[in-house]
Amino acid sequence: MLEVALEEARAGLAEGGIPIGAALFAADGTVLGRGHNRRVQDGDPSAHGETAAFRDAGRQRDYRDTIMVTTLSPCWFCSGLVRQFGIGAVVVGESRTFTGGHDWLAEHGVRVTILDDPRCVNLMEEFIAARPELWNEDIGVAE
Amino acid sequence: MLEVALEEARAGLAEGGIPIGAALFAADGTVLGRGHNRRVQDGDPSAHGETAAFRDAGRQRDYRDTIMVTTLSPCWFCSGLVRQFGIGAVVVGESRTFTGGHDWLAEHGVRVTILDDPRCVNLMEEFIAARPELWNEDIGVAE
Repeated sequence: MLEVALEEARAGLAEGGIPIGAALFAADGTVLGRGHNRRVQDGDPSAHGETAAFRDAGRQRDYRDTIMVTTLSPCWFCSGLVRQFGIGAVVVGESRTFTGGHDWLAEHGVRVTILDDPRCVNLMEEFIAARPELWNEDIGVAE
Repeated sequence: MLEVALEEARAGLAEGGIPIGAALFAADGTVLGRGHNRRVQDGDPSAHGETAAFRDAGRQRDYRDTIMVTTLSPCWFCSGLVRQFGIGAVVVGESRTFTGGHDWLAEHGVRVTILDDPRCVNLMEEFIAARPELWNEDIGVAE
């Protein structure tokens, strides 16, 4: 499932954007929605990978059996999304370059898996080194 | 400032949507962005009042002096938004009909004001009574 999120992250990078991707899966592995960070592309600060995937999935009546797969540990905004809508599980590509609220989610009953995937780590390390100001903007770190 | 959020909530209701509105203000009272829940109108489950207002404000480099005004206590998704981006203050129209993460925000240094405005309470009480299934969908309460 991480491959879909990685494809999204790479698509975002190719568009000149922030390389974070995500996808929301049904329990049977069907992709319900997928997306990537679109801050640069759309000028939309609310379009994180996870929120883009959630939006792409449209209206759903029950998220308990769904799985959010993301290339990077979800920030507080995206962690709040998971908690509010009762998404049952989160799979995180890596949490070395950034750690958001995944421990908090686990405390609240979400099944959290951290993959520590070197491709995800590499994407973010290169991006953060190249565009530190853009990265800080995306996670709300002021000057 | 609540008037702007209330106008948004009422506009959402008039469109057949969920009557929750919000606006993001600069410290001097300038409206940076405003919006309302658009789940029904756009089929977009990520468009809560606060996320719509945040999105409408576009890219900002520093949220510390901004104020998020919302007709209803922010859910975990919207509370996560406030925390991640370091929005300095939240003004809540009411938290009688729903309470999200505003206490958690206060614990993390956000200045939270609860107005307990009867117009906001009335809007939500009437909406919840009329469309309980839609309301539950919007806050991720499964059947």
